[in-house]
Order: sequence, then structure tokens, then C-alpha cells
Amino acid sequence: MKCHICKGKGSIELKHHNLKICEECFLIFFKKKVEKTIKKLKLFERDERLLLALSGGKDSMGLWHILSELNYNVDGLHIDMGFGELSVKTKEKIEELSKILNKKLYIINLKEEIGYDLKELSKFTKRVPCSLCGLVKRYFMNEIALKENYSAIITGHNLDDEATTLLKNVLRWELAYLGRQTPLLEKMDGFVKKVKPYIFCYEKETLLYAIISKIPYSKDSCPYSLNSKNKNLKMAFHILEHTSPGIKLNFMKLFLKNRDFFVPFRERELKDLVKRCIYCGYPTDREICALCTILERSKNEISTGK
Amino acid sequence: MKCHICKGKGSIELKHHNLKICEECFLIFFKKKVEKTIKKLKLFERDERLLLALSGGKDSMGLWHILSELNYNVDGLHIDMGFGELSVKTKEKIEELSKILNKKLYIINLKEEIGYDLKELSKFTKRVPCSLCGLVKRYFMNEIALKENYSAIITGHNLDDEATTLLKNVLRWELAYLGRQTPLLEKMDGFVKKVKPYIFCYEKETLLYAIISKIPYSKDSCPYSLNSKNKNLKMAFHILEHTSPGIKLNFMKLFLKNRDFFVPFRERELKDLVKRCIYCGYPTDREICALCTILERSKNEISTGK
Repeated sequence: MKCHICKGKGSIELKHHNLKICEECFLIFFKKKVEKTIKKLKLFERDERLLLALSGGKDSMGLWHILSELNYNVDGLHIDMGFGELSVKTKEKIEELSKILNKKLYIINLKEEIGYDLKELSKFTKRVPCSLCGLVKRYFMNEIALKENYSAIITGHNLDDEATTLLKNVLRWELAYLGRQTPLLEKMDGFVKKVKPYIFCYEKETLLYAIISKIPYSKDSCPYSLNSKNKNLKMAFHILEHTSPGIKLNFMKLFLKNRDFFVPFRERELKDLVKRCIYCGYPTDREICALCTILERSKNEISTGK
Repeated sequence: MKCHICKGKGSIELKHHNLKICEECFLIFFKKKVEKTIKKLKLFERDERLLLALSGGKDSMGLWHILSELNYNVDGLHIDMGFGELSVKTKEKIEELSKILNKKLYIINLKEEIGYDLKELSKFTKRVPCSLCGLVKRYFMNEIALKENYSAIITGHNLDDEATTLLKNVLRWELAYLGRQTPLLEKMDGFVKKVKPYIFCYEKETLLYAIISKIPYSKDSCPYSLNSKNKNLKMAFHILEHTSPGIKLNFMKLFLKNRDFFVPFRERELKDLVKRCIYCGYPTDREICALCTILERSKNEISTGK
């Protein structure tokens, strides 16, 4: 196999780009691709202070590395959900990369913040861990970004993640969710801008980048990801991509081209959320938002010794 | 397994309806389901003269049987594409059912009509057989229905077919196609109404109906269906249905609820098709539509002995 770029020996095939490439050329190609996404979608500028949400996996860790290489000003934030030994090992990797890149790192410990780790919180609220995890992460990411004066929160969602979510929303015709799905969610009153620079990058590419660049990252999956329905959705999508290389990329690009179309449904939903949580300011249809309700209950139960 | 309806011994499980049922109750349940679809979507009335497109498979043959049982006035039309022994066997089954139901049957032979069977037409036009098959069928179905004064053309597309097409259109964000996809395409100048009473029926159900009712039908697949990309799409969808029973039905029902939304894209497309084919009246952006262009070329080549 010949590298299409340097004409040397290639070792990587990216069928969705109809490209055969060597490792060295891949790193250059991939960095250019990420930078092009940032510029084309106007995600952020070099003078902005950016905060990257770090799970410790190949996506967020690779993205931290790449954004630093591209001279963006990015600090990291990790939220420790309390997965025991797994969390300890993950934190070590994140701290290691923080030192290599010489970037600031914030670590939030869920148990210290609210008195429960994710498993305990799930038991306490009788809600599935995955939805709680999203709720908690959104809350603390926004809180730290506001407090520390960052202009954007970056997440490492890759194309496979985002296309799967998009497919899930389409299969249920969740029009308001479709209006909300975007790689650039502009800041709103009380909310920092949220961006996804890996939106057009296949998981295969983000993995290759992390491996070839020898970035320390955690290879362990979240203990709750194994039973997730999203896994089947990803597998089904994988079959389609195998038959029609590039179908995910096209699905996402054409959606974003037609996205405006679904925005009114999002706005209609926002009109229903006329109130703001009296504690944290999140849009809500109640006095107190979902997370603050949990936090209040949890504080009361701790203080009454339940 | 106990039948949820008669409490006798059940043998069929319909996970998408969360229903266990015996064969006798299934037949009643399924007929009711089809009749409910016809009434709810206002597809047609009992005093209409209806023409059913028959491929000879379980769907169209089962549908002919069920509509006759429900006392609708339905004749049949089969277009023989010229698949040799396969076509002969299929025609025998269709003629057999026509006699059982005591309904009129039209048979069109493609080779006799245009001088080429489907394989030859594909070679001659250098176009894939599947797209030509659709073109030819739409043309002759409409022609016979107009000539013989039928008010609607019925096709046996089941939920698996339609949900797969819908998914294909969504994956490519074909907004005009989405605006066109409907179980009830009202008549337009020169076009007879087109309806799909099996729109909410899973393939599993249409197959069970045909088998339990002992309907003669062809078990052979179209020789071109084996390599179709739709097969992978169907397989991927099958995985999703397996994990989330009812996902296809929901996908279709919610789409139809929101379909109005895509109709403007269809109308925009229709505005581009301002002309009508000078031979057959089909909407076209040229003087002569795609099929008539082929038919003209074919006639010329035959007359010049090419």
C-alpha cells in the first residue's frame, strides 16, 4: 500500500476519505482536518480561554494534545465519578498528560461535592447512571467555566458518537432534540458556549491519532457503557458504514446543512422552559431544576443522617 | 405460551405489539389492523374500483386475499419482467389466486410491450435493473389504471420496506424524497391515487398471514435483490428492532405525524418539474420523460434493425 500523500509506504486506509496514508502524513492530515473544522464552523479563536472536558479516553486526551499542538489555549477539567481503581488509574493518565502539555487541570470529585459517587447517586435517585452522569457533568463543567472565566467548554465527542445520537433522535423524530444537536451551542444567559471540534472525525481516526502520537490515555471503558442501547445503534451504523463508506460523515454534514430547519422546534421547547432554577439558573419548567432537586435532597438526607 | 386474546395455546409472539397470540386470533387481529389502517389514513372506500400491483410474493398476494375478505373491490395487475422459468412459476401462482378470489387479472409482458425484458433493457440503457424496474412498473400501473378506470393503485409495501426507504432518505437527508414518502399519494393531473395498506405491518406479520391463510405465493426473491444495498440497511434495522421492539413502527408513525413538515420540499421540487412529457404526461424537466426517452430509443433501434 502506497501513501497517497508522500508516495512512501502507507499503512492506514481511510475508506470514508478514499485515502491510503502513512503514519507521519496521517498526523499532519488529521491536525489539518481538526483545524479546518474549528475555522469552518467558527468554533473558537486562538485568543479565547478554553476548557476541555476530560474523561481520560482517546478522544478527549487526543483532542487536548492536538489543540495544544495547534497553539490553542486549552486547560482541562476532569470529573471523578468514583469508579474506584478505574478512576485512580484514569486520573494518573490525565495528570501525566497535563504535565506533558504544561496545562492547568481541574479535578472535581463527585463524592466530595455532593456526598454520593455516581453509583450511589443512581441508587439514591432510582435513575439510570448514564442520564445522571450527563446531568452532573453539564452542571459542573458550566459552573467551573463560569467561575474561572473560560469562554468555551470543549468536549471530545467524535463523529461516531454524534452520528449515533443523531440517528437515535431521527428514529424517534425528536424534533426539539434535532434542533438542539450542534457542534456549536452559543452562550446563553448563564451558560458558557459548548463546542465539539471532533464532530467530523471518525473514532478510527481519533484512536489512530492517540496511538501514533503516543498520548497517555485510559483504555478502560465506562463500566456502564457495556449494557447501553447505544451500543446496538453503533453496531447497526457500523454495518452501514462498512457497506457505504462515508455514510456517517455525509449524514452529519447534510444534517448540519439543513439544521436551521429544526431550530424552531428547539425554540418552541425553550419557550416552555420559561423559568430559571432558583439555585443554579438552568432553564426549567419548575422552581428548582432536576440536578438541584437531587442536590437539595441529598444535602437534607446527609444533614438528617439518613 | 398462552394466547393473550382467546387464552388458548398461543404460538406466535409479536414483540412490537407486546402480544402473544394463536394462529386463529392472529388472522382476525391482522385483518382488523389492515382495515384500521385503511380507515384511519382514509386510503379508499368500499365503492372504489381498486387495482393491486402483484409481484406474486407474500405481501401483494396476501394483501389481495385480505382485501377481498374485507369486501373491497380489488382487481390485480402483474408485470412480467421476463425472468424466464421464475416468471412462469410466479404467473401460475398469481393466476391460481385470481381464480380462488374470482377477481380480474391483467398481465403485462415487458418484452411484448417495449421489445426488451428487464435484463436486456438494463444492458441497452446501461442503467441498474432496480431503478428501471421501478420506472417501468410505475408507468404501466398508471397507464392500465387510467385506461380501465380504477380510482387507486394499491401496492404491497410493508413496514420493513417503507421504514428502510425512510431510513435511507433520512441518512442522506433527501428532504424532497421525505416530502414524497406517504402511504396515500393523492391523484394528480394524469396520475391515479397510490396507496399502501400494509404500511404499519411488519414483514413477519405479512408472511404469517400468507402462510396461515394458505395463500399460493412465490417464495423466490427477485434475482436482483441479492446484491442490493438495501439488504444491509434492512439488516442494520433488524438489529435495532431486535434490541428495541417496535422501533420501526414508531419511526414510521412519528414520521407520518410530522410529514407535513417536509412537504414544502416536495413542492419546491415539483415547481422545477414545470413541463409534462409530450408522450405520457409525466412531470419532467425535459420535453420527453425518462421512460419515454428509453421507449423512443428502443422503438427506433428496433425499426432500424440495430
